[in-house]
Amino acid sequence: MSLIVQKYGGTSVGTVERIEAVAKKVAASHREGNQLVVAVSAMSGETNRLIGLANEISSDTNLREMDVLVSTGEQVTIALLCMALQKLGIDALSFTGSQVRILTDNAHGKARIKEIDSHRLQGALQAGKVVVVAGFQGVDEEGNITTLGRGGSDTTAVAVAAALQADECQIYTDVDGVYTTDPRLVSDARRLDKITFEEMLEMASQGSKILQIRSVEFAGKYSVPLRVLSSFEEGPGTLISLEEDDQMEKPLVSGIAFNRDEAKLTIRGIPDQPGVAYKVLGAISEANIEIDVIVQNVAKDNSASITFTVNKTDLSQAEELLGEIANDLGALEVDSDKRIAKVSIVGVGMRSHAGVAAKMFEALSNEGINIQLITTSEIKITVVIEERYLELAVRALHSVFELSEPGTEMT
Amino acid sequence: MSLIVQKYGGTSVGTVERIEAVAKKVAASHREGNQLVVAVSAMSGETNRLIGLANEISSDTNLREMDVLVSTGEQVTIALLCMALQKLGIDALSFTGSQVRILTDNAHGKARIKEIDSHRLQGALQAGKVVVVAGFQGVDEEGNITTLGRGGSDTTAVAVAAALQADECQIYTDVDGVYTTDPRLVSDARRLDKITFEEMLEMASQGSKILQIRSVEFAGKYSVPLRVLSSFEEGPGTLISLEEDDQMEKPLVSGIAFNRDEAKLTIRGIPDQPGVAYKVLGAISEANIEIDVIVQNVAKDNSASITFTVNKTDLSQAEELLGEIANDLGALEVDSDKRIAKVSIVGVGMRSHAGVAAKMFEALSNEGINIQLITTSEIKITVVIEERYLELAVRALHSVFELSEPGTEMT
Repeated sequence: MSLIVQKYGGTSVGTVERIEAVAKKVAASHREGNQLVVAVSAMSGETNRLIGLANEISSDTNLREMDVLVSTGEQVTIALLCMALQKLGIDALSFTGSQVRILTDNAHGKARIKEIDSHRLQGALQAGKVVVVAGFQGVDEEGNITTLGRGGSDTTAVAVAAALQADECQIYTDVDGVYTTDPRLVSDARRLDKITFEEMLEMASQGSKILQIRSVEFAGKYSVPLRVLSSFEEGPGTLISLEEDDQMEKPLVSGIAFNRDEAKLTIRGIPDQPGVAYKVLGAISEANIEIDVIVQNVAKDNSASITFTVNKTDLSQAEELLGEIANDLGALEVDSDKRIAKVSIVGVGMRSHAGVAAKMFEALSNEGINIQLITTSEIKITVVIEERYLELAVRALHSVFELSEPGTEMT
Repeated sequence: MSLIVQKYGGTSVGTVERIEAVAKKVAASHREGNQLVVAVSAMSGETNRLIGLANEISSDTNLREMDVLVSTGEQVTIALLCMALQKLGIDALSFTGSQVRILTDNAHGKARIKEIDSHRLQGALQAGKVVVVAGFQGVDEEGNITTLGRGGSDTTAVAVAAALQADECQIYTDVDGVYTTDPRLVSDARRLDKITFEEMLEMASQGSKILQIRSVEFAGKYSVPLRVLSSFEEGPGTLISLEEDDQMEKPLVSGIAFNRDEAKLTIRGIPDQPGVAYKVLGAISEANIEIDVIVQNVAKDNSASITFTVNKTDLSQAEELLGEIANDLGALEVDSDKRIAKVSIVGVGMRSHAGVAAKMFEALSNEGINIQLITTSEIKITVVIEERYLELAVRALHSVFELSEPGTEMT
């Protein structure tokens, strides 16, 4: 008998009919002898409907009351799912975040979980019940309702799985697993059976939106095996787990992530002085603009240049700030480029293998694609290229690392 | 400075626009220097929408989960009303039934309030906040969400007023007060400035649907002055309070209530034996059929006959049961009549005055209306008549007791 936490998102519970389909999946797993906790989101569209009501009053509403409002979305789903389970003869019991006692800080709208009281959940499980928990919500120490921010139901599921020391946390989504790259771009993209937490994090941070980054971090931290599956199709999905669990040799490259949401900014000819990077990037960060890739060079005349990327929506503000900084520092010029894309190859196999970067650069060179920036981490190599070459680059890399052919890239 | 509890029903908060209108009323009273607690219902239509979702799954849903579901309706309203108040510069704070801690028994769907923890509410009031409480809902000792049954928001308001020892509990509705009788039937029906709890109870039990009976009982028990006002018009409404508070002499008759929802059943020629009434009515009650007026006679031959009324929806079931009972008891016959109506005159003045009943019967006789049954209580006289004479009877009684002319009926 395994203890499994399942999570179904808004699309999976978008109608009563779909809730009944979810109930069937849950019931099947329960009848196989598993203990089950199910975390659910609001029915798709419901959160937006509630926010719409608030916006009729004001666009700048009180965050505490906003949480009181939107948390009703998941509360509706837990009740309906329990009813659907009971109709199938399954004894089910619902819990709001407050009833579980998912204790969070008081940062309304983006609260962080501090502690989960597993007492009531354990009691219900031991009584043979299927437990249905409202995702996305918690309660602070004063009893105020909090929400974890959009997509927070994944985090709820993982946190509950960690608190209960569940055997697996299954995240049901509208895709049937994690792919080597976006199948809409590369037709022979392949579903991965397994991937490590680190790889998943690198994939997710590069625009693979299947799972919330926080939930993957959380799962990694507490070693909760995470499985991504489809709500609508049968299939094993992708298991995200610790590398150590994996008996097989790891492939060099597990997947290719990409992102076209960023723009590039460069400041050139900064007279050399200590702390230049801090002076440039500190001011940008203070304006709450998130900085991604950063590269710094020193020219022959000892003047420095710094290039970094920001989200396209922050570009004009960042440009303005950078202009002021250039003045202060006596830098020569500032320029920016929106027509860029980031492409990353990700794989824990890189750790023990040289030559992966060279292979990547060669592949891009063969296609005539110029690399503007390069950054590397232990398990990821990222390049910034011209946006119009993005699809060509992804397809070339997918092919050169043989990602469509399972197993062949093992060493 | 007064402490006032206000209650706004579903129609009063039916749209965001109306919620903003309620916020203006609340803000005005707050700016006059009153401390305010506001209890609200779900936006009109919302509870039915939620029940509709449940009914898509099953018509026989789990009551605990039904409470989890429908309690979201008021939770949405409290958040939106707080936002609307905050937009007007009023510091407002919302509480669900569980957050107040409105402790109830665990009779889901029809829970009764056991205790209200006034601690958090007092704290918020003392901090100068307007407190907004979700009506209709509470929490049992195990932390399960409960609801008080439909219309229970009135009860919430009264119970909170009692717990806080409020100066007045104001129930805002779609009518501007309690009338001497239904103004749709009698055009010169008059709004009453004052009425006693007892009179209001008798009026309510006879089909005057302005207030929930339970909330009036509750208000009477804890001596909470209750005022019925219109959400949509200005005006003093009707104050419902203890008779003792009233300096004026009471009128003989305060109002006329009526009801056409009942049917009459008669069982005749029951051989005389002890416990006949119990044998007949006990079986009906056991089938959960509510019995209203009961009259028993003994004929010259010592055989008994019993007549009683039930709701029309229960008639066919009651007829069937009564047929079996008649067989068992060896009674002569059973008959029933749907085309009846009940009319009552209500007034605490009756206690100290004879002749009221005679005046009533004379008025009906003058109109050629035959009285089929009569029952009386200390402050109410009820007759059952043919349904087609109902309007005639109500108008005649309204006139003979001079209800359209305030003050004239004082002794």
